[in-house]
Amino acid sequence: MSAPVYQKTVSAPVNIAVIKYWGKRDVGLNLPSNSSLSVTLSQNDLRTLTTASCSAAFEEDSLWLNGAMESMCESPRLSVCVRELRKSRLELEAKNESLEKIANYKLRVVSENNFPTAAGLASSAAGFAAFAQAICALYELPWTPTELSRVARQGSGSACRSLFGGYVSWEMGEQPTGADSVAVQVAPVEHWPEMRVAILVVSAAKKGVSSTAGMQATVATSSLFAERARNVVPQRMVEMKNAIRARDFASFAQLTMKDSNQFHAVCLDTTPPIFYLNDTSRAIIRAVESINSSVNGYAAAYTFDAGPNAVIYFLEKDSDLVLTTLRSVTQNAEGWEKADFKPVESSEFLNLEPTVIDTISSGVSRVILTRVGDGPQVLPDTESLVDTQGNPKL
Amino acid sequence: MSAPVYQKTVSAPVNIAVIKYWGKRDVGLNLPSNSSLSVTLSQNDLRTLTTASCSAAFEEDSLWLNGAMESMCESPRLSVCVRELRKSRLELEAKNESLEKIANYKLRVVSENNFPTAAGLASSAAGFAAFAQAICALYELPWTPTELSRVARQGSGSACRSLFGGYVSWEMGEQPTGADSVAVQVAPVEHWPEMRVAILVVSAAKKGVSSTAGMQATVATSSLFAERARNVVPQRMVEMKNAIRARDFASFAQLTMKDSNQFHAVCLDTTPPIFYLNDTSRAIIRAVESINSSVNGYAAAYTFDAGPNAVIYFLEKDSDLVLTTLRSVTQNAEGWEKADFKPVESSEFLNLEPTVIDTISSGVSRVILTRVGDGPQVLPDTESLVDTQGNPKL
Repeated sequence: MSAPVYQKTVSAPVNIAVIKYWGKRDVGLNLPSNSSLSVTLSQNDLRTLTTASCSAAFEEDSLWLNGAMESMCESPRLSVCVRELRKSRLELEAKNESLEKIANYKLRVVSENNFPTAAGLASSAAGFAAFAQAICALYELPWTPTELSRVARQGSGSACRSLFGGYVSWEMGEQPTGADSVAVQVAPVEHWPEMRVAILVVSAAKKGVSSTAGMQATVATSSLFAERARNVVPQRMVEMKNAIRARDFASFAQLTMKDSNQFHAVCLDTTPPIFYLNDTSRAIIRAVESINSSVNGYAAAYTFDAGPNAVIYFLEKDSDLVLTTLRSVTQNAEGWEKADFKPVESSEFLNLEPTVIDTISSGVSRVILTRVGDGPQVLPDTESLVDTQGNPKL
Repeated sequence: MSAPVYQKTVSAPVNIAVIKYWGKRDVGLNLPSNSSLSVTLSQNDLRTLTTASCSAAFEEDSLWLNGAMESMCESPRLSVCVRELRKSRLELEAKNESLEKIANYKLRVVSENNFPTAAGLASSAAGFAAFAQAICALYELPWTPTELSRVARQGSGSACRSLFGGYVSWEMGEQPTGADSVAVQVAPVEHWPEMRVAILVVSAAKKGVSSTAGMQATVATSSLFAERARNVVPQRMVEMKNAIRARDFASFAQLTMKDSNQFHAVCLDTTPPIFYLNDTSRAIIRAVESINSSVNGYAAAYTFDAGPNAVIYFLEKDSDLVLTTLRSVTQNAEGWEKADFKPVESSEFLNLEPTVIDTISSGVSRVILTRVGDGPQVLPDTESLVDTQGNPKL
């Protein structure tokens, strides 16, 4: 009889920051130079599905990512997460005799995204969140998401924010150990469920500087970065939380756009300069400004992470206007076939130069439409990515 | 017999800042938020030629710019310069009985650039410098360039730096009147005559935000701008002066590139964000980085003003390397036919991605090769742009 295989399957969401994380005060512990705040996106459209399994029969810790096996011990960031979770399971087993002694079994973790990696979306947050959450569930650790966020953070900083649904802050903390550098829910989905999201995937010739290398170059060389981290972001965190609590989209939008721009500004103030925005990104910014001008206010807010893709937030009530405009400038992009909105007469509001439209149209390859969503879910074994022997279902 | 026409003809140079002027603390007086520093370019390649004339026969103050007449009183910036210069001439005439009484004669100023306006080069500095210098010469005002810079500054801020050759600072000053906001020569051409310049003219679909509007938007909305103006630039002014005095190209280059990037960073930190760099500009930055990597140091330094054109500084001794590289990526550009350099084997040092080369090659329409040069010159009447009746020679 073969050794039993223990397993748990979870899904975890992508999150997109509206107050940006950029810069570490401690690289080893993934402690940030400033707090950040994000919106969790719906797992119906973007999610990582992960099964964590363990068994006396497994010979090494291993990870299967989108069908390819990787050794877990080669990733120090994964190893540190596993070490902490395993240690906690051991303590739990020591305290509770009735628990199975599985802590020292080798782990096999199988993970898949429901969106193409080629889309260039930052999937590491969802990936590390799912990884930590799956092992936490497998080990039956009685942790809150905030407690688990301390572990996930060490895998990938922004992963900690994917442990909650809705609107989530990552409080930078003060302790050198990072014990207080954790994620906290600002508001659940239900508080402001009308928040919608359009992601414009921009084809880039090549990925730019990796974010870990980039952020440390900024910390080391930008003479404006310290001002941002020390004085600007703390104030914006307060304002953004207030905007979310008050469901004040105008303030949310202004802060989101300002903070995206400032993040890219400190990238440009880095030596050598880091550029993530390209001409397509800049043209999308103009299109969003045009949408906002047409309503004499704020119907949409752009934000850009470490790449040229645009993420555009808007409210349900403005979706016809926003999506009509976006579709009119991204006719060639995949993804519109699933869109559900009522086109409005675009000539009334669209005041864009032809070169702006051409630049967007030729640069955007795909559109992903989604909305604010829930945090990680523990799923029934029917969703498992391993068979009863613990072999990945490929 | 017709009334006599008095006239003087001068030429004035373009200057390109290496520590950037961006932001006014007083818009009316053109007082800057921070000091700046520039290199004056040779008038052999880029200059404004201006004849100032006056006569009892003229009926109004008028200005002919590149063949088109403009009313001077419609430009408050020109009017303020004229008013100050006229007032000083009046005082001079009051003190010296032997002087002709020409101060109250109407002025006719004729001005031409020796480079195409279509090149999109900031010509207002040379234009206002020549304007002020020509009237100053016509009125025989015994002013030093620094004294004249106070007047030219009110026409166009950066014009004050075009009143000197070589390396020039514009000291921001402290007085509310602007009396101490003047240009000063840091070093003459002869101190460091080896400085050469390549301007890569980038075709832009449309000029972006005007610099006056842009800089005030930055002052009003960027949360990083004050840090730049208060703390970063004062330090860089000291370092840049030291670099020039020591003829230390490595420091000159580093500061030049950092300050260009920081200027564009605060533009990006403005609401709405201001973009002057485009994909071609960014690709040129990568090409310059590649040149510098090939020498494990600094052979070239880029800087960008309020537009996508690149200005690249380098030393005579590195001109073969720099120009070979630049020519290899701008094959389609006009202007190389006049270049005088010995091509070096580019495969040794050029490590650029094809997309970078394509982007530069398709974006750069013209190359202007020049060097550091002298300040304004008073020219003989044979160079005059008006005939003996004061009519523009068109």
